[in-house]
Amino acid sequence: MHATTPTAPPTNELQDLFGDRMVTGGAELDRVSRDESRAMPEGAALAAVFPESTEEVSAALGWANRHGVKVSVRGTGTGVSGGALAYAGGLVVSLERMNRIMLIDPVNRLAEVQAGVINAELDRAAEDHGLSFAPDPASAEISTIGGNIATNAGGLRCISHGVTRDSVAALEVVLADGSILRTGARTRKNVVGLDLTSLFVGSEGTLGVITSATVRLKPIAPGIPRTFRASFPTVEDAGRAVTAIVNGAQTPEVLELLDARSVQIIETYKPSGLPADGCALLIGQFTGLQAEQAAGDTAQLCREHGAREVVIAEGESLLEARRLANPALNAQGLRVSCDVAVPVGELAAVFRGIERIAEQHGRTISVVAHAGDGNLHPTVEAEDTPQGHAAAEVVIGDITRLALKLGGTISGEHGIGLVKQAELPWQLDEATLHAQQMIKYALDRKNILTPGRGI
Amino acid sequence: MHATTPTAPPTNELQDLFGDRMVTGGAELDRVSRDESRAMPEGAALAAVFPESTEEVSAALGWANRHGVKVSVRGTGTGVSGGALAYAGGLVVSLERMNRIMLIDPVNRLAEVQAGVINAELDRAAEDHGLSFAPDPASAEISTIGGNIATNAGGLRCISHGVTRDSVAALEVVLADGSILRTGARTRKNVVGLDLTSLFVGSEGTLGVITSATVRLKPIAPGIPRTFRASFPTVEDAGRAVTAIVNGAQTPEVLELLDARSVQIIETYKPSGLPADGCALLIGQFTGLQAEQAAGDTAQLCREHGAREVVIAEGESLLEARRLANPALNAQGLRVSCDVAVPVGELAAVFRGIERIAEQHGRTISVVAHAGDGNLHPTVEAEDTPQGHAAAEVVIGDITRLALKLGGTISGEHGIGLVKQAELPWQLDEATLHAQQMIKYALDRKNILTPGRGI
Ligand SMILES: Cc1cc2nc3c(=O)[nH]c(=O)nc-3n(C[C@H](O)[C@H](O)[C@H](O)COP(=O)(O)OP(=O)(O)OC[C@H]3O[C@@H](n4cnc5c(N)ncnc54)[C@H](O)[C@@H]3O)c2cc1C
Ligand SMILES: Cc1cc2nc3c(=O)[nH]c(=O)nc-3n(C[C@H](O)[C@H](O)[C@H](O)COP(=O)(O)OP(=O)(O)OC[C@H]3O[C@@H](n4cnc5c(N)ncnc54)[C@H](O)[C@@H]3O)c2cc1C
Repeated sequence: MHATTPTAPPTNELQDLFGDRMVTGGAELDRVSRDESRAMPEGAALAAVFPESTEEVSAALGWANRHGVKVSVRGTGTGVSGGALAYAGGLVVSLERMNRIMLIDPVNRLAEVQAGVINAELDRAAEDHGLSFAPDPASAEISTIGGNIATNAGGLRCISHGVTRDSVAALEVVLADGSILRTGARTRKNVVGLDLTSLFVGSEGTLGVITSATVRLKPIAPGIPRTFRASFPTVEDAGRAVTAIVNGAQTPEVLELLDARSVQIIETYKPSGLPADGCALLIGQFTGLQAEQAAGDTAQLCREHGAREVVIAEGESLLEARRLANPALNAQGLRVSCDVAVPVGELAAVFRGIERIAEQHGRTISVVAHAGDGNLHPTVEAEDTPQGHAAAEVVIGDITRLALKLGGTISGEHGIGLVKQAELPWQLDEATLHAQQMIKYALDRKNILTPGRGI
Repeated sequence: MHATTPTAPPTNELQDLFGDRMVTGGAELDRVSRDESRAMPEGAALAAVFPESTEEVSAALGWANRHGVKVSVRGTGTGVSGGALAYAGGLVVSLERMNRIMLIDPVNRLAEVQAGVINAELDRAAEDHGLSFAPDPASAEISTIGGNIATNAGGLRCISHGVTRDSVAALEVVLADGSILRTGARTRKNVVGLDLTSLFVGSEGTLGVITSATVRLKPIAPGIPRTFRASFPTVEDAGRAVTAIVNGAQTPEVLELLDARSVQIIETYKPSGLPADGCALLIGQFTGLQAEQAAGDTAQLCREHGAREVVIAEGESLLEARRLANPALNAQGLRVSCDVAVPVGELAAVFRGIERIAEQHGRTISVVAHAGDGNLHPTVEAEDTPQGHAAAEVVIGDITRLALKLGGTISGEHGIGLVKQAELPWQLDEATLHAQQMIKYALDRKNILTPGRGI
């Protein structure tokens, strides 16, 4: 191995390998230097490459490792934590051209895909076999399976189908030095060696580049889904109802919460007749042959927990309001949000605490939540100025500490990336942070892969 | 840190810490130097300690690390892979006195337990709250939760509830140098940092000593379970039926297979009226309010796949035959078995292959399988002599290679430990083995924890 030299690394070596699948400037480099976080790239990258095979990823990393060049790894850049932002003088490795579905195996309910396959495309391909790919981040139409795995993405159906990790059976991964690992197995059970598959899931580009994955598919539930919407006088009541539903006999496939302020924002963005009486809403879905019965039972449970009005509908129509939450919030201009989670038994307590924090700071906070998982996205309204932003961050800090105090976590699904790096020690003690760094060092001696982020 | 010295390490330091909870010889040291594998301890251990707290585990490891003493870690030694066998001149750390259930939290469906709690004791404590601890190895009454986690143990209900890993939310772990890690979270979703929880699950004592765990509990299904037993003229037919059931609309809670030879052995051990017509048996169970209907549908599916006779019963009585398989096989004297798994779509193929292998070697092989998971325990009958044993190992080798060829794994639930160490490279390539060693080195610089085993 060579030591890092102060002279610019010889990109001509890469150029020989990648030809016109490499850019060293212009709009294309700019595009792949960003993600959906508010943070900016750390500087101008040296180049971006668009490998089409595992061997090409290996060659690119081998080159970067030899020359000590920092690497940012990118699916489609829909991440909101800054994990895929380019480094100054760094190399961008974009997986977007590795978008082949290699196999759908309906008998074993497995699919083999390259990392750059778009989540929803796999789901559609699986549908032909009566199967689905359970991970369903709201970004399913625009994010990659590699990115979903690297962030252990959540979505609406986690309460019933688990997180992305629960759908990953095996991975192919290229390490920083270009070596190629194969983890996991095609079997349901496998206890051979360390669980490297889970180690790479959620590692946010810090340990290796995922080049392909064997993922599990699930049968599409028969029958017509039933969706329900229940309105509660207070968000705390709604929180208590969620705890009761989750502890009840039937697990909904989806269980989402909108507080009164989010309902108002969504209704302003696109009026659709949501209750305008200052209520918080729970929106849930059941699938399968017992869906109708289960939705009815749950509606009753909601009434027992103080619901004012409960509507039940066939199909997914009531979920539409929840799907509008992101665009509606975005349309409102600068808002600072977070991604905390608490044990479901603490939902009422966390809502109470957030109301107190809003009062203390004199700020409006709206909350959208994957309530069944205890995963909240509170948004603080703020002026689009550095001061406004900073003030909102202080409020977010208080919410984050509240979640931790209630036995929760600082990130339920969006990850740490660059933007939450400073908060990591709030949750992880020194020994744990140290162990993570030792593992990072074990697999990436020169610290070239997504350095300074995620762990 | 001191270098390892050729003089004996000063056990008096340990004696001061552990007093009468330390032994340096006798029957007690002998007891904790062994496990349920056929392998023997590598030699006489220096001492065994019985810590009662995390701090004591930390002190013991700190001592071992300073003096370069090899450590074997032990729950109750029911492991069958030799992972907990003592090292010559080594220290045995037994978790059996760390047997406190610290918390059962029915609202969040979590329990916090020390590592030495017996699996079935937690399950009984959870039952008072209408909950259960899903991991159910056949050793549930005698094995520890720490051991279950360290081996990622399987059991009868994996097809419906997943493996032990799926029930672990957070861990407290002591590393080789005595430092104390806390991994995971109490929330359903958590993407903060690396998934160290999963890394320690299944690590077989090689990366750290699990001192306590936060585990998930599940509600006990309402209603009376229904069990069914279907007999098939050939084990291949039974295998095809399993594939169909697993791909059907209703997932059984349990789906086990006994080939004709195992049925015969069980019936000889304890006659209970199992079909004596040379059939292979599938035994399955459904729980929940739809159990009766589901069992009926599955019985029909079995008939369509060639079942000769199908019996359905209330409760768990038909599972009894499956539970007798281990003692019945043990009662037969020397038998060499393994723990391969294949994708469920390959069950008929693996049974066909095993029959061919039996013919080639002129050996009788019986198979008991967690069929719904594709996890097989084939047993080769052999004379109780070194030659008999060696001959059986050759047959097991062929079965193992067959499983790998079918996309399977060399261990579905028992782990690698000492006894399968030589087979590891059959499944894992050099880059993967190297990555494991680098991670091991990252967390255990002096290689004192369960060295030379598991990974
Ligand atoms: C409208 C919208 C809705 C969203 N909804 C959700 C949601 O419901 N749930 C949720 O969890 N997230 C959500 N997100 C966030 C984001 O979509 C997810 O994190 C997604 O998994 C990122 O995928 P990507 O392909 O865009 O990855 P990128 O943004 O390109 O990268 C994300 C991180 O993963 C790493 N990475 C990407 N690909 C690889 C690879 N092949 N190998 C190694 N590392 C890699 C990157 O280095 C980076 O650290 C949403 C984002 C948007 C814009
Ligand atoms: C009758 C019988 C039936 C069985 N049935 C099953 C079955 O259905 N499914 C199955 O998977 N297994 C089964 N087993 C195997 C065994 O019971 C399991 O592997 C069990 O999980 C081991 O638990 P233990 O407490 O006995 O661990 P031990 O045997 O003491 O140790 C097993 C391994 O885990 C490590 N270890 C133990 N405790 C810790 C800890 N606290 N921290 C770190 N490492 C630790 C040890 O170092 C060793 O490598 C069976 C065994 C018997 C004898």
